Amino acid sequence: MKEIKIGLIGWGTVGAGVTRILQKNSALISRRLGARLRLVRVADLNLKRDRGMKLAPGILTRDAARIIEDPEIDIVVELIGGLDPAEGMVISSLRGGKRVVTANKALLAERGKTLFREAGQVRRRIFFEASVGGGIPIIKIIREGLSANRISSILGIINGTTNYILTRMSEEGITLAAAVRGAKKAGYAEKNPALDLEGIDSAHKLALLSSLAFGGWADFSRIYREGINEITDEDIAYTAGLGYTIKLLAVAKQSPSGADLRVHPTLVPRRHLLSAVNGIFNAVYLEGDFSKSQIFQGEGAGQGPTASAVVADLMEAGREILSGNDSTPPFIATDRDLKLAPIGEVVCRHYLRIPVIDRPGVLARIASILGAGGISIDSVIQRQRYKRGLVPVILMTNQAREKALQTALDKISHLEVVRGTPVRIRVED
Amino acid sequence: MKEIKIGLIGWGTVGAGVTRILQKNSALISRRLGARLRLVRVADLNLKRDRGMKLAPGILTRDAARIIEDPEIDIVVELIGGLDPAEGMVISSLRGGKRVVTANKALLAERGKTLFREAGQVRRRIFFEASVGGGIPIIKIIREGLSANRISSILGIINGTTNYILTRMSEEGITLAAAVRGAKKAGYAEKNPALDLEGIDSAHKLALLSSLAFGGWADFSRIYREGINEITDEDIAYTAGLGYTIKLLAVAKQSPSGADLRVHPTLVPRRHLLSAVNGIFNAVYLEGDFSKSQIFQGEGAGQGPTASAVVADLMEAGREILSGNDSTPPFIATDRDLKLAPIGEVVCRHYLRIPVIDRPGVLARIASILGAGGISIDSVIQRQRYKRGLVPVILMTNQAREKALQTALDKISHLEVVRGTPVRIRVED
Repeated sequence: MKEIKIGLIGWGTVGAGVTRILQKNSALISRRLGARLRLVRVADLNLKRDRGMKLAPGILTRDAARIIEDPEIDIVVELIGGLDPAEGMVISSLRGGKRVVTANKALLAERGKTLFREAGQVRRRIFFEASVGGGIPIIKIIREGLSANRISSILGIINGTTNYILTRMSEEGITLAAAVRGAKKAGYAEKNPALDLEGIDSAHKLALLSSLAFGGWADFSRIYREGINEITDEDIAYTAGLGYTIKLLAVAKQSPSGADLRVHPTLVPRRHLLSAVNGIFNAVYLEGDFSKSQIFQGEGAGQGPTASAVVADLMEAGREILSGNDSTPPFIATDRDLKLAPIGEVVCRHYLRIPVIDRPGVLARIASILGAGGISIDSVIQRQRYKRGLVPVILMTNQAREKALQTALDKISHLEVVRGTPVRIRVED
Repeated sequence: MKEIKIGLIGWGTVGAGVTRILQKNSALISRRLGARLRLVRVADLNLKRDRGMKLAPGILTRDAARIIEDPEIDIVVELIGGLDPAEGMVISSLRGGKRVVTANKALLAERGKTLFREAGQVRRRIFFEASVGGGIPIIKIIREGLSANRISSILGIINGTTNYILTRMSEEGITLAAAVRGAKKAGYAEKNPALDLEGIDSAHKLALLSSLAFGGWADFSRIYREGINEITDEDIAYTAGLGYTIKLLAVAKQSPSGADLRVHPTLVPRRHLLSAVNGIFNAVYLEGDFSKSQIFQGEGAGQGPTASAVVADLMEAGREILSGNDSTPPFIATDRDLKLAPIGEVVCRHYLRIPVIDRPGVLARIASILGAGGISIDSVIQRQRYKRGLVPVILMTNQAREKALQTALDKISHLEVVRGTPVRIRVED
C-alpha cells in the first residue's frame, strides 16, 4: 500500500488531536483513502508537555526545518497559528513542492492573497477546512457541494467562545464578565480572549467564507466589525422578552452596492434556526439560488472536531497526490477583489435602548428625531422605571438604513434628557 | 476553454432544473470548474410538455440510445427513476467509458451492488449526491468531509413527503388522510404515495448512507421498516403533550450485534434538533468519534435543490475528467456486506397507547405483563375517558429490548379488557 508522508508543525491541542486520529483510525483511513497516511515528523518547541499520547521514537523534534526541508515529506500540517513564522513556513513548504494543510484563519485571512497566489504559481494547494467551523466541512460544502449555486447570503455563528459566553448569559442571566470567567474556567476562552470577544476571529473566518462563496478576495481589514464587549445582561433580558436571542453573527450578503460583510451582535428571532445554536456549537446558514436555504451545525471548536477537519484535508490532499493531479482550478479567488458594500448602506431593523430621565415628552422627542431621519418605529416595547431615576426607552425600528440610523442616534444621544450611551443592536429577520 | 459534454436522460422536474442551472449559472460554473459543462443532448419520451424553458434546436430527442451510444458524451445524467430500463442505461453508459450521475436511490439501493462493482471494473464512477437529502451535500459530507471519523450513528429525516404530512398533522391537528390530500395538492406527494408513506424511499436512502458510513454494503431488503400509515392525529396530540414530535426517522447505529438499520415513526423530544425540522425540509444528524455530533439541514425535495446536487456532481465528474484521473478508491463498499443487527435486539424507550375498557385493575394487569417481560414503566401519562366507553392507557416505558416489548404487547393485546390494537411508537432520546 502506498504511503503519504506527513510532517506536523505545532503539537498543541489540535495537533495532539490529529496524531490521535492518525493512530486510532489508521486502518479505516487507509481503507477509505487507498493509501497510508504516515506521520513521519512532529515539530514543537515544547517537547515535555504531556499530550496524553505517545509518538514513536525519533518523530518529535524542536526543529520545524526538519519538516519543511525534508524532500520526503508530502504534506505539511501547520498548526502553530499566528502570522509569523507561520507564513514563512507555509511559503517554504509550498515552494518545496509540498501540500499544506492549515487551521490558521488569521494567517489566511490577513495574508491569504499572497499565500494562495504562491500556491497557484507552484501548483500546490493550501487546504484549510479546519480554519472555519471546527468539524463542519463548510469549506468543502461551499466549494464543492453547492458549487452549482450563486450564493446570496451566509449567516454564521462561527466563534464558539463568544457563542458559549452569550449562551451562558442568556440561560443563567449572568453578566458578560462572569460569563467570560466561566468560559476561561471551562477551557473555552483563552487567557486573553480579545480575538474572540472583539469579533476578529469571526471576521477572519467570514473573509474566507465570503471569498469562497462570492468569487473574489474579501479584504479582511475592511470587514465591519463589532464585538460582544458592550452586550449587557440587561439587553439580553429585554430582547429575550421580545422573542429574540442575541448572537454574534458573521453576515455576508450579495447586495446591489457590493458584498455586505459584517460581524456584530445580532438579534435573531427565536423561530430562526440559528437562535437555537447554543454553547460551543457553530452553525452556518447559506442561501443558494437553487439549493435554497440550508444550515450546517456542529461543534465549532475543541480538539476532536478541528482535528477531524485537518485529517479530512490530509485525505483530500492524499487523493490528489495519488491521482498525480496538480491542476485543480484556483481554490479561492485572488485575481479580483470583492467589492464591499459600505456599512452605511446596510438596511435592517434595529433594537434601541435609550436611558432617559423619566419625564413627559421624552418619547416624543426621540420619535421625532427618528421620524426626521425617515426611520419609522415598529414598536415601543417597554418603559419601566429602573436604576437612578432613569427609565429605558426601548424601541424596535422598522427597516432603516445604517447611515440614517447612526445620524439619528447621534442626535438622540445629545438630547439633554438622555443619560448615558444609547444601545443599538441590529436585527436579522 | 475545455468542454465537457453531457447527455441528460429524463427531462422531468429535476431534469428541467438541471437544464435551468446549466443555462442560468453557466458562467459561474465555468469559472469555478475551469471548463465548460455543455449539454449536448436531452432524451425524454415526452417532447411536448412545457418545462418553462427552451433548449437549443437538435438537443431534444426521444431516443436515449443517442446519448448512451454517443462516444462524444463524457457524462450521462440518469433521471428517469425506477429500476428498468434505468439499470441497463447506467451499465451501458459505464461500459462506454462515461461517468454517470444519478438521483435514482431505488436503483442504487436495490441494484447498487452490481452497478458499483461494474463501475469499479471499468474505472468509471457513479455519482449520486442527488439521491439523498435533496440539495444537502450529504454524500460528500460523509464520504469526504467526515472521512477521518468512525461514524457511530446517523439519524435522518430524509423523506420530504412524509415530513410534510407529519408536520401538517402536528401543526393543524388534521388526520393522516387529510394531510396526504394536502400534500398531493401542494405537489409534495405523488398520486400513489406508497413509496413515501411506507418508508421505502427512506429505507433506500438509508441503505446508501449506511453503506457509505459503515464501510460495507447494506442490504436494502433487510432494513426494518415501518411507514406512517398507522399514525393518528390522536397519537400526535398525546405525544405533543408529552413534549415529543413524531418524525419518520431513518436510523443507522453501530451496535455490538451489527449495524442497527431501521426506518419507523419515532418520538423525538422537542429539545432535539431534529424535532424542529419541518415541512419538506430534510435533515441528517451524524455522530463521529472525533467530529462529534453534527446536523445538516436543507430542502429535501423539489426541483432546485435536487438539481443543485446533480450539477455539483457534474462539476465533480468534470474535475475528475480534467485531472485525467480514473483511479479513485471505491466510492462505496461492495466487497463486503454489512452485518445487520436483528431488530429484536434493538433497545429503546417506547410510547404505548392501549385502548381498554374503563374498569379497575386494568392498568395493574398491563403493568404486570410488562414487568414479567422485564420492561419497566417510566410513566403512565394520561387516562381519560374517550370514545365508545374506552379509555386509552398511555405509557412510556424505560429502555426495553424490542423482542421483549413485542412479546409483552402480544400478550397485552389478547387481554379481554383490551379493545383494538395497541399502538407502539419508538422513542429516540
